[in-house]
Amino acid sequence: MTEPSFHMTPDEFRRHGAEVVEWVARYMETVEEHPVLSPVAPGDIRASLPAHPPQRPEPFEDVLADIEALILPGVTHWQSPNWFAYFPANSSGPSVLGELLAAGLGVQGMLWATSPACTELETHVLDWMLELLGLPDRFRSDGPGGGVIEDSASSATLCALLAARRRGRDAGAELGDLVAYASAHTHSSLEKAARVAGLGADQVRVVAVDETYAMVPGALATLVAEDRAAGRVPFFCCATVGTTSSLAVDPVAALADVCVAAGVWIHVDGAMAGSAAVCSELRWVNDGLDRVDSYAVNPHKWLFTNFDCTCFWVADRGALLAALSILPEYLRNEASASGAVIDYRDWQVPLGRRFRALKLWFVIRHYGAEGLAHHVRRHVELARQFAAWVEADARFELAAPPRLGLVCLRHVGGDEVNQWLLDSINASGEQYLTHTRLDDRLVIRVSVGQTHTEERHVRALWDHLACLADAS
Amino acid sequence: MTEPSFHMTPDEFRRHGAEVVEWVARYMETVEEHPVLSPVAPGDIRASLPAHPPQRPEPFEDVLADIEALILPGVTHWQSPNWFAYFPANSSGPSVLGELLAAGLGVQGMLWATSPACTELETHVLDWMLELLGLPDRFRSDGPGGGVIEDSASSATLCALLAARRRGRDAGAELGDLVAYASAHTHSSLEKAARVAGLGADQVRVVAVDETYAMVPGALATLVAEDRAAGRVPFFCCATVGTTSSLAVDPVAALADVCVAAGVWIHVDGAMAGSAAVCSELRWVNDGLDRVDSYAVNPHKWLFTNFDCTCFWVADRGALLAALSILPEYLRNEASASGAVIDYRDWQVPLGRRFRALKLWFVIRHYGAEGLAHHVRRHVELARQFAAWVEADARFELAAPPRLGLVCLRHVGGDEVNQWLLDSINASGEQYLTHTRLDDRLVIRVSVGQTHTEERHVRALWDHLACLADAS
Repeated sequence: MTEPSFHMTPDEFRRHGAEVVEWVARYMETVEEHPVLSPVAPGDIRASLPAHPPQRPEPFEDVLADIEALILPGVTHWQSPNWFAYFPANSSGPSVLGELLAAGLGVQGMLWATSPACTELETHVLDWMLELLGLPDRFRSDGPGGGVIEDSASSATLCALLAARRRGRDAGAELGDLVAYASAHTHSSLEKAARVAGLGADQVRVVAVDETYAMVPGALATLVAEDRAAGRVPFFCCATVGTTSSLAVDPVAALADVCVAAGVWIHVDGAMAGSAAVCSELRWVNDGLDRVDSYAVNPHKWLFTNFDCTCFWVADRGALLAALSILPEYLRNEASASGAVIDYRDWQVPLGRRFRALKLWFVIRHYGAEGLAHHVRRHVELARQFAAWVEADARFELAAPPRLGLVCLRHVGGDEVNQWLLDSINASGEQYLTHTRLDDRLVIRVSVGQTHTEERHVRALWDHLACLADAS
Repeated sequence: MTEPSFHMTPDEFRRHGAEVVEWVARYMETVEEHPVLSPVAPGDIRASLPAHPPQRPEPFEDVLADIEALILPGVTHWQSPNWFAYFPANSSGPSVLGELLAAGLGVQGMLWATSPACTELETHVLDWMLELLGLPDRFRSDGPGGGVIEDSASSATLCALLAARRRGRDAGAELGDLVAYASAHTHSSLEKAARVAGLGADQVRVVAVDETYAMVPGALATLVAEDRAAGRVPFFCCATVGTTSSLAVDPVAALADVCVAAGVWIHVDGAMAGSAAVCSELRWVNDGLDRVDSYAVNPHKWLFTNFDCTCFWVADRGALLAALSILPEYLRNEASASGAVIDYRDWQVPLGRRFRALKLWFVIRHYGAEGLAHHVRRHVELARQFAAWVEADARFELAAPPRLGLVCLRHVGGDEVNQWLLDSINASGEQYLTHTRLDDRLVIRVSVGQTHTEERHVRALWDHLACLADAS
């Protein structure tokens, strides 16, 4: 007598797996037809869902049908080629299949021993990434440094700050005396990381920026000197290559001069712009990285690897381990004790971890260095074209120097017109744009970088903006 | 003229998707044939990989072939029914397909607006989970509380501690005066969370445990009183329902008495054991939860949802938001400003987030409450059986009260024999077991809870142990 198993059998998995693959393939083919920004109102999606969980199993067909009927209307389509908002969070076929395989294997790579391949492929692919991006050898795993995949650049910033905090504390500083440095354009995750780490708001100094919104090294040097004179302990600086607002590039080399001289850990957040280095002609984004303590870049933004996949490197892994390593009895094992292996749980805040290296490995092998560079180069060219249209139209102006895939612009008619332009475009469903404020004026951000964005999409966006400007 | 696109087309995705689905289905069918613990030596996997990344695209077939040839030997098989190590990190067909769909949709749910369905399904499923587990209404999203999916129980503990820290600081306490409480059996993530949050090692007090390794409420009360008398500020207590070492259950109700009276935030870590509450007869695991501030349980352990999926609830979401909310200009939007929506970025440390609710929704609907309870009940019965065999064999003894799916045992011959038993079993590849230490003696942990573990697997493990004991 067989009792009901409730499990999905391998054969059922084959059948339903084929259905989901087909669903995703169709989604890829039709994503452009959906309104990019979901038009639902708060509560709409919940109102369509049953109030109580099912007691009995439901057929998989019903679940899949509900994706179409109940979920899709509430999806904002990050994978649409008409996505020009924020930065992209790109996916791609090989990445999705890498994620599928990782879920199917279901390994949890907290320790080397809990799946050696999960750890070693990650270390290996992070070394590959250094080569793909032309990054300094100091981050290679065969020296004192090394790389790891974090869930996000936020977590990378936090880990860097914690390593720096540990270094500062080991040198005798009180927690309350530590001072971190950033600009008003540094990503908000720096403020969050500092807060998480127990620093007061007054322990993060805002360094002045120049007219391109890039941090001014002299201003950093002055603040560091003032803080030291006042008995405080400068310990961490977060520089950015490609800020979220305007893709401003902090002068990393000059900032590193200040930081190295002052014993300040300098972390560089290259979340979006760092990927540009797959193109040899764009390797200026790496300027100065040969002297920084840590660096992060997000393949889940511009390298076609679905969220979450942030590459994070440190020049001295010892500092990171000192900050994050805790070894309870139940995690002790021979391999870890030998010192011959990496246990990535000590490189991140959580204990558990998925096999994220698989999807990045799939992407790199599917595209090759050449394919990755091809698409990044193409996006940069499309953005350049878009910026030229803006410059040639007297009704608009560039609000910041266009850079890589980002064009910051505004209608010359003021904030109200710009807000109306944004709202009109987003409500149309044809494209999705977001904003920032620069010099206290509303700015439209056009981020070109979605995997499938082509010239016709960028052209349509410009026509849409120009047409609305006619009507305004 | 068409230039090379490098992308995987939807049709190629259909074809390769079918190949990967077939690979995973075959893996499900054959996982039992692999040695559970990977036998590779440090460096073996890396040595088999090309030193440099490919310049040109590689065929997907080659990538998939390498999974079999290069990766699989380095995999430790968490999805094997012969997995008795640590706790399980279970997967299942519906969960894997939910993960596939999430990757295919590729939404990033940092804000409600960036995909309303991602946020609202999560809130909804977290309310469903309260019902499935019989948890108190105070955690429901329609009151002042609410739930969120974190990547791990470690992150849940950290978020709880940060909310408590904020509450303590708002009440005027200095960071250096705050004191947290845990036992020596609390998960190591508490120590890590305290360290991350800037607390010194001396700011975490170790509360005594009784003979079942459960925290003693009187001991907590005494420490709290001592600390207050000394001018320190008790602010956080992490209780555990089902410790990692021995599944010990802290007396939550009595601990809550102490904490509520002293204004101490009490967080309960039910990462593994909390899932038992899907069975009505095991709802004693919820005792006292109606008076705690926060609670975490991991569907990625015992509810067939692949890592990462931790359900984390708070009774007062205001405290969590106060701790973690930061709003830069570029994330401002009408929906958030209206206050009518949840922005889950403020409920976690990182900014970005995947659509993890999909896989949990798939699992709940596929199994139904009945299917989930069936398997948890079955595991508990198998563990009970195993414990009975241990008790009936004079060569072995129980090292702690067997509870739910965990049996802690040892050979009466002492640590060396037990280490040899562990090493022999793990080296055989037939099963995978891990250890702990209790009362300074080596203890073999047998954790029964892998999705596909059946009586024959538990029986084979016992036969293996008994046979080795004959030889020892």
